[in-house]
Amino acid sequence: MDVLLLIEVIGTFAFAISGIRLAAAKKFDWFGAYTIGLVTAIGGGTLRDVLLDIPVFWMQTPLYLYVTGLSLALVIIFRKALVQFNRTLFIFDAIGLALFVVIGIQKTLDAGLSMWVAIAMGTITGSFGGVLRDILINIEPLFFRKDIYATACIAGGLAFWIMRDIGYNDVIQQLVCALVVIGLRICAIRYNWALPQLRYDKDKHNHNHEN
Amino acid sequence: MDVLLLIEVIGTFAFAISGIRLAAAKKFDWFGAYTIGLVTAIGGGTLRDVLLDIPVFWMQTPLYLYVTGLSLALVIIFRKALVQFNRTLFIFDAIGLALFVVIGIQKTLDAGLSMWVAIAMGTITGSFGGVLRDILINIEPLFFRKDIYATACIAGGLAFWIMRDIGYNDVIQQLVCALVVIGLRICAIRYNWALPQLRYDKDKHNHNHEN
Amino acid sequence: MDVLLLIEVIGTFAFAISGIRLAAAKKFDWFGAYTIGLVTAIGGGTLRDVLLDIPVFWMQTPLYLYVTGLSLALVIIFRKALVQFNRTLFIFDAIGLALFVVIGIQKTLDAGLSMWVAIAMGTITGSFGGVLRDILINIEPLFFRKDIYATACIAGGLAFWIMRDIGYNDVIQQLVCALVVIGLRICAIRYNWALPQLRYDKDKHNHNHEN
Repeated sequence: MDVLLLIEVIGTFAFAISGIRLAAAKKFDWFGAYTIGLVTAIGGGTLRDVLLDIPVFWMQTPLYLYVTGLSLALVIIFRKALVQFNRTLFIFDAIGLALFVVIGIQKTLDAGLSMWVAIAMGTITGSFGGVLRDILINIEPLFFRKDIYATACIAGGLAFWIMRDIGYNDVIQQLVCALVVIGLRICAIRYNWALPQLRYDKDKHNHNHEN
Repeated sequence: MDVLLLIEVIGTFAFAISGIRLAAAKKFDWFGAYTIGLVTAIGGGTLRDVLLDIPVFWMQTPLYLYVTGLSLALVIIFRKALVQFNRTLFIFDAIGLALFVVIGIQKTLDAGLSMWVAIAMGTITGSFGGVLRDILINIEPLFFRKDIYATACIAGGLAFWIMRDIGYNDVIQQLVCALVVIGLRICAIRYNWALPQLRYDKDKHNHNHEN
Repeated sequence: MDVLLLIEVIGTFAFAISGIRLAAAKKFDWFGAYTIGLVTAIGGGTLRDVLLDIPVFWMQTPLYLYVTGLSLALVIIFRKALVQFNRTLFIFDAIGLALFVVIGIQKTLDAGLSMWVAIAMGTITGSFGGVLRDILINIEPLFFRKDIYATACIAGGLAFWIMRDIGYNDVIQQLVCALVVIGLRICAIRYNWALPQLRYDKDKHNHNHEN
């Protein structure tokens, strides 16, 4: 339990930092940067809880507000030095992502839904915060363009499913899922993995489908 | 029942195709295009179910995931040929829209809410997926600019209301509603119908109202 | 009760006008402008109700639709003259904001949640409609850039909290909260108050955190 909480704090921290840095690059004020950091960290879990119709997780404890505040303080104080910690932050980000996926899957299964819904929710938990962040700072969600991100979440979810089908216990299911997510993220960055782009001939037909 | 399901699949298919094509034009990768297609197809119904506080429809069956997958495969395989089917796709789109409106209205009435809420929900079911799609690919929602789209949903809803007030049965209510939506969509495209623009003199007063 | 309702109508009216004017400046059609006005007015309360898992407020009465319709009619009829009423509209906006914050806090406390959640919900009720408006017309949410806006909501919430801790009754709690919000908004506009920007050295490290 304590380990899970610690990892969740680390994940929240990494996600909040990523939001705050992008906001800072866009010259947001402190409050705006704080909000972007918070939304990046809790957005995915919030959508998951609303879709599952269960109590929204961050209303149960102010912990996420504090961690985001700490993240903001660190960015303000160490803004130049932070660049040197990119590698560390990336690892935090990958660990946070992995845990968010595990939590999303577990909560969905606990709510009595199917495994494929759980994988969708794990993916939403891990990636929707970043999509919201991009919408709020009005850049095109990178989610749809680069790297293996949501696909790492899905792969982790499939690993969870396989471990579950074979009959391994909860801890193994969660651990394998997390390792797959982290492993794929590291490989994606290191080897510059990407999914194939969709080629498509732009034309004027789209005006029939604008809604 | 089987007919309704078939039409729903056709609507999902048409909406997913519209999302995937726009995503392809923006050079998204496969997964991004799939997600955009899925969100276009299920976004409206998801918001409706969350607002009505009823179980989210797409969690009950993976059908929508499969149909979106099929849409993606078709766009990838037939990307050039698809342009020739614009007319067919537009008809699918209009039929899908009509059914989405009918489903949105019926579900809201079944939840015990007023007819005007039902019309709002029918409109949301039919058009919010497209708005989400436009937000995610970061273009200004066409919803607010062109054609008769949401207004066709509302007109269909009013037709539903009138049939209901007169005392016609469910099937007639739904059929007339659907025909009004489809008819208006076809007329809007064929005769280039549009609502009047709001003329307004731009000035600097807006800075008082920026939130 | 009647006074509260009157103030709520005034707030809805001011928020809807702000949305419709921005939409008009972007040349939206009437329906698009109406929708933007409505979303600006009810967006914050809708998110609050969904997060709190209570019935969405605007489904209970069509009042908000009517007030938005009236706002649209006024913008269409008096579009040039409206500029002269900027000061009046700003006061309406500040009063509306204050009431939205009070309602958000009170509803959250009534749902049995903590005071800090209530402050968050008051802030969401007051400011999320404007954020949605900016997303829908595809401009960067001004929320994160200018003026004291969300911070005025939070300050009002803290005032509410203090009054509550001291033991004052509901009316005093709400009144002091509202006055703090209105006062801060007026001072922010008059003295051009703003929060400090986050300085941050742009670099290429962000690609590790794109989701």
